[in-house]
Amino acid sequence: MKAISLEDGIVFHANYADPTTRDCAESVIVRVLKAGICETDLQLCQGYMGFRGVLGHEFVGIAETGPFSGKRVVGEINCYCHNCDFCQRGLKSHCPNRTVIGILNHDGAFAERLIVPQRNLHLVPDNVSDDEAVFVEPVAAACRIPEQVSVSAGDRVIVLGDGRLGNLCAQVLNHHGCQVTVVGKHSYKLDLLRSLNIDTVLLNDIGALPAADVVVDCTGSPSGLPTALQMVRPCGTIVLKTTVAAEQTMHMAPIVIDEIRIIGSRCGPFADALGLLSSGAVQVRPLISDRFPLEDCGAAFERATQKDALKVLFDIG
Amino acid sequence: MKAISLEDGIVFHANYADPTTRDCAESVIVRVLKAGICETDLQLCQGYMGFRGVLGHEFVGIAETGPFSGKRVVGEINCYCHNCDFCQRGLKSHCPNRTVIGILNHDGAFAERLIVPQRNLHLVPDNVSDDEAVFVEPVAAACRIPEQVSVSAGDRVIVLGDGRLGNLCAQVLNHHGCQVTVVGKHSYKLDLLRSLNIDTVLLNDIGALPAADVVVDCTGSPSGLPTALQMVRPCGTIVLKTTVAAEQTMHMAPIVIDEIRIIGSRCGPFADALGLLSSGAVQVRPLISDRFPLEDCGAAFERATQKDALKVLFDIG
Repeated sequence: MKAISLEDGIVFHANYADPTTRDCAESVIVRVLKAGICETDLQLCQGYMGFRGVLGHEFVGIAETGPFSGKRVVGEINCYCHNCDFCQRGLKSHCPNRTVIGILNHDGAFAERLIVPQRNLHLVPDNVSDDEAVFVEPVAAACRIPEQVSVSAGDRVIVLGDGRLGNLCAQVLNHHGCQVTVVGKHSYKLDLLRSLNIDTVLLNDIGALPAADVVVDCTGSPSGLPTALQMVRPCGTIVLKTTVAAEQTMHMAPIVIDEIRIIGSRCGPFADALGLLSSGAVQVRPLISDRFPLEDCGAAFERATQKDALKVLFDIG
Repeated sequence: MKAISLEDGIVFHANYADPTTRDCAESVIVRVLKAGICETDLQLCQGYMGFRGVLGHEFVGIAETGPFSGKRVVGEINCYCHNCDFCQRGLKSHCPNRTVIGILNHDGAFAERLIVPQRNLHLVPDNVSDDEAVFVEPVAAACRIPEQVSVSAGDRVIVLGDGRLGNLCAQVLNHHGCQVTVVGKHSYKLDLLRSLNIDTVLLNDIGALPAADVVVDCTGSPSGLPTALQMVRPCGTIVLKTTVAAEQTMHMAPIVIDEIRIIGSRCGPFADALGLLSSGAVQVRPLISDRFPLEDCGAAFERATQKDALKVLFDIG
């Protein structure tokens, strides 16, 4: 099959070995329709997690085996053991025995087929298109925030970063009734948000922004957390959505003096994300900036690293 | 009156001007009986907060004016305006108009007298001695943790640091039914905790310590937070109790990957602290390592900086 593998760099294979369900217990084969390039994929290419294998963890496909055979599906990316203490305590996405699709010891979705544990699959409602369904994983990551932080209607929320994930976090929190302001560097990306009636401000113009109850850092930059600390009110909350691979240097004393809460936030509930896409509460089509076939992986990844790109998709099946 | 003032260094004055209630609205004069040197006092001497004036914020005294006149009192240190948005929302200790006794624009308790807003005062129960009452402020700071973090009986808690504040945090969380282990560098300080049936371990021997639900950083060291990140379980909580004035460098990605919560924690409820001291649930007398008169401020502060010192008290009235 066709597949994009991360080796010393990214490599397109025309004849990569097809996966078999023997590779993973209680798993099914999914034929991939579309898959999206995520910031994490770009970091994996830089050596993050030391991953080697087929990249890709944002996808929609058709189950070829198992109880959902012939149906459109999306798949949660953490493949957990279901037996350890963490799994038993409901912390499945932190299972120490887990593989993670396209990220950790599990071939991913930049391929014609991949294997996914049956229990990770969710059926896609008919009114959610393939283009929309490929966003379920990042929308779910945004839905993780209200799972972790008690946000109330009227809470002042600042989202730092106008990229793909910042956009989705802003939409999800706006849907929860928060007063959301997105701070970004790119006026055309902020335009997308304003067309959804979400307030925006350019980073250079933030002078008089009132302190926020919650600041969500989607910058992927070492400057994100220090900036968030300047914007959050005393006893407020900072949600860290993006990882910074390198060490960073900053003053921690304001966290104590102002009694700030900082919460790391990763993967979220697929069912909530499918609901928001199905109801139209979250709009993702304007985020698709480019489409490539698997064969053009070099061009696709180069495009995804450019500042003006939003979501780059692979059209596969 | 006698007073210790922070100028270019600490200076003993035999004839410092007596405070008057004109200096502070709805305030009373308190004659100081005893006061304790806190880590924050040592940091103020290093330039923290840029404070100039009479040091000291841990004290017990006798009200000389106001409704508690003639009674033993302790005083909350944040003197808030009661009118701003923060005060109205119950975030009084974060009032932007506040003064802080002995820390910010308000002369402190290393003196024969100080002024305190009447509403900051709490009467000291008869069965709480002067030596015990001088610990109300740091015990209250420890009581802030269960206000901020939902700790349950049986939760595994690691307290990093065997100093004054680490000891008190461990006692308070032990009283809440947590399984507390204190990690420290000083075996004789850990002995104090073991005599209270609290588990301890030397930092060099922590090899197989199971991951904790909550880690409380009382180290006052830049190494505290990275060490806490290694000890906390996924989705666990790190409480930062001590400030590190300097910048620090560390990897933040584990906060996101393991979805850790970090909570800054400062001043706490005096009523809870008085209750714990009155019932004997928290034992503070063994923490008193030295006593000095105000005149010997140089020796007292030098002693407080030594690694083997615990609480250094001024006997004043």
